[in-house]
Amino acid sequence: MTDALKLGATIGILGGGQLGRMLSVAASRLGFVCHIYEPGANPPAGQVADRVTTAGYDDVEALTAFAASVDVITYEFENIPTEALDILERQCPIRPGREALRISQDRLTEKNFLQGLGLNTAPFADISDQASLDAALAEIGAPAILKTRRFGYDGKGQARIKTLNDAPQALADMSGAPALLEGFITFSHEISVIAARGLQGDVACYDPGENVHTDGILDTTTVPAKLSGSQRMDAVLLAGRILNELDYVGVLGVELFVTPAGLVVNEIAPRVHNSGHWTQNGCSVDQFEQHIRAVVGWPLGDGQRHSDVVMENLIGDDMDRLPELAKEADCALHLYGKAVTKPGRKMGHVNRIIRKKG
Amino acid sequence: MTDALKLGATIGILGGGQLGRMLSVAASRLGFVCHIYEPGANPPAGQVADRVTTAGYDDVEALTAFAASVDVITYEFENIPTEALDILERQCPIRPGREALRISQDRLTEKNFLQGLGLNTAPFADISDQASLDAALAEIGAPAILKTRRFGYDGKGQARIKTLNDAPQALADMSGAPALLEGFITFSHEISVIAARGLQGDVACYDPGENVHTDGILDTTTVPAKLSGSQRMDAVLLAGRILNELDYVGVLGVELFVTPAGLVVNEIAPRVHNSGHWTQNGCSVDQFEQHIRAVVGWPLGDGQRHSDVVMENLIGDDMDRLPELAKEADCALHLYGKAVTKPGRKMGHVNRIIRKKG
Repeated sequence: MTDALKLGATIGILGGGQLGRMLSVAASRLGFVCHIYEPGANPPAGQVADRVTTAGYDDVEALTAFAASVDVITYEFENIPTEALDILERQCPIRPGREALRISQDRLTEKNFLQGLGLNTAPFADISDQASLDAALAEIGAPAILKTRRFGYDGKGQARIKTLNDAPQALADMSGAPALLEGFITFSHEISVIAARGLQGDVACYDPGENVHTDGILDTTTVPAKLSGSQRMDAVLLAGRILNELDYVGVLGVELFVTPAGLVVNEIAPRVHNSGHWTQNGCSVDQFEQHIRAVVGWPLGDGQRHSDVVMENLIGDDMDRLPELAKEADCALHLYGKAVTKPGRKMGHVNRIIRKKG
Repeated sequence: MTDALKLGATIGILGGGQLGRMLSVAASRLGFVCHIYEPGANPPAGQVADRVTTAGYDDVEALTAFAASVDVITYEFENIPTEALDILERQCPIRPGREALRISQDRLTEKNFLQGLGLNTAPFADISDQASLDAALAEIGAPAILKTRRFGYDGKGQARIKTLNDAPQALADMSGAPALLEGFITFSHEISVIAARGLQGDVACYDPGENVHTDGILDTTTVPAKLSGSQRMDAVLLAGRILNELDYVGVLGVELFVTPAGLVVNEIAPRVHNSGHWTQNGCSVDQFEQHIRAVVGWPLGDGQRHSDVVMENLIGDDMDRLPELAKEADCALHLYGKAVTKPGRKMGHVNRIIRKKG
């Protein structure tokens, strides 16, 4: 642990949502303190962090002071403006590094990166106008899905094209933003690998989880996923290739479709991932601690789990079920401390431990 | 959950050490925020709490403002001055209640309370001077142990009397403070029960842990403890009697000696307890969350564990072993964020999950 930050050092976290919140708690278990940077007032992460800066990503003074107050910077979301990163990086290391952000901030760049690694993706095409969309649909066919290249998450910035008639409206939905057309692929289920790479290049993966989405938002993750031994191995190996190619430091989420022809990469997220929340109650070292271990230069946990888990997101008025959930045995609650419940808003999650018989 | 505090309510915690720190983290998982009251600067709990007041227990203004800012008050240690409690209680409920504090603040009161419940304790006598000590030693015999009635913890404020010749020095060690002479009892091992009682009177206990002390400080807790089924039942039932008699709300630690003649109560602590730290990695609802559930009026977790655990305290220069501990599989680290390592100081603990074969 010669390159490791000293105990008591400060980790700067860009973003004050639930991921920053759970990262801060994990950092505390290892003896580090966190400073949250977040434009919105009273962020959930601030309730369990040593310090909070409330300022925008265009506030040069605040960014400079923030970078001066911390020993390393990490983040809970990938859409951080490049100009802000430039200011921060002059003063302080950012982990995971800029290359991972550059690639994951743009769906087209990401798809090209993945294909360049020899990994399977859905067919895709760069869309700038009706002509390029028509050409792409002629090749890829309908149904397909049009997505903004940047700033989409939880199904936002996406339009389905069921038949060619839907194309003009889908393009209009992009509001002129650069977009990507993705062909549909036939898959039996979706899984994700939560993988990590340490400062010394060591790699550790959690067993893949099986994800079920509802209305474009993750609903449940179940571990273990339905996978053959060779599929499981493929998933872990391809995650390792992505990490090594990016010279990555931290936790990365890789979403995969399971198809008869093999695993297809849907997308990558250069951060802790909703589909890794099960690790909080299934493993001695969860994904949040794993990420902190990587960014401070500690050895990684080995990714082993002691229990099978089903994670369920609590979205919007799922919060009305709290009185029942609070009474349920083997059910670990994780609420995010958000003041206002809104439809589609992630308010918390529960991890249900599956007891093995006998 | 009709009597429960609203989500987002503020829990005031008296004391900013590691117990307050882990209570604050647990409260966050349930959607509550914590305000720490602590005389010492930069308390460990403050690193993961929404707010910290740094002020003494004689600061009427600070106590009043603190009580006005929170919805319920709890504490991480039992030696809170009565005057401070009087001020706080005028404005805000204190849970666990005053009776538990009154009894556990004085070893003599506590012993009388336990005997009054029909529970076994070591033989004891109130000591105020040499004459009362001589009389007590004549009855109880040596070896025995002289303890201050108030403010002792982790072996502090105690003097052993191996032979009658040690008596004058032991009494001098008390510096004139009221004291208690306790006879030695022969026991095979020490266990503790972490028990909880909710606002509606519901009771839940964790399976007893087996404790090993070194130099008067807890070293390890192992779950399950070596106990017969009837011993296990006795331990849980007597903890329930204590909770009900005190009309208790929160988590209580009960230390017990296992003797051929049955269980003997050593002492009780009206708070989360070092010997309950194993629950963080053995249960879906740990002792810290259990305590928060009780004080906010939520239903309790059922106390079931999914894994067997050995907890080991990291004391003083045990921190030098951190590089090895960080690499160990199935080892969950919990550091306390204390700036200075001192001999005998609790710096953290590890929970090692014991995998069941097959």
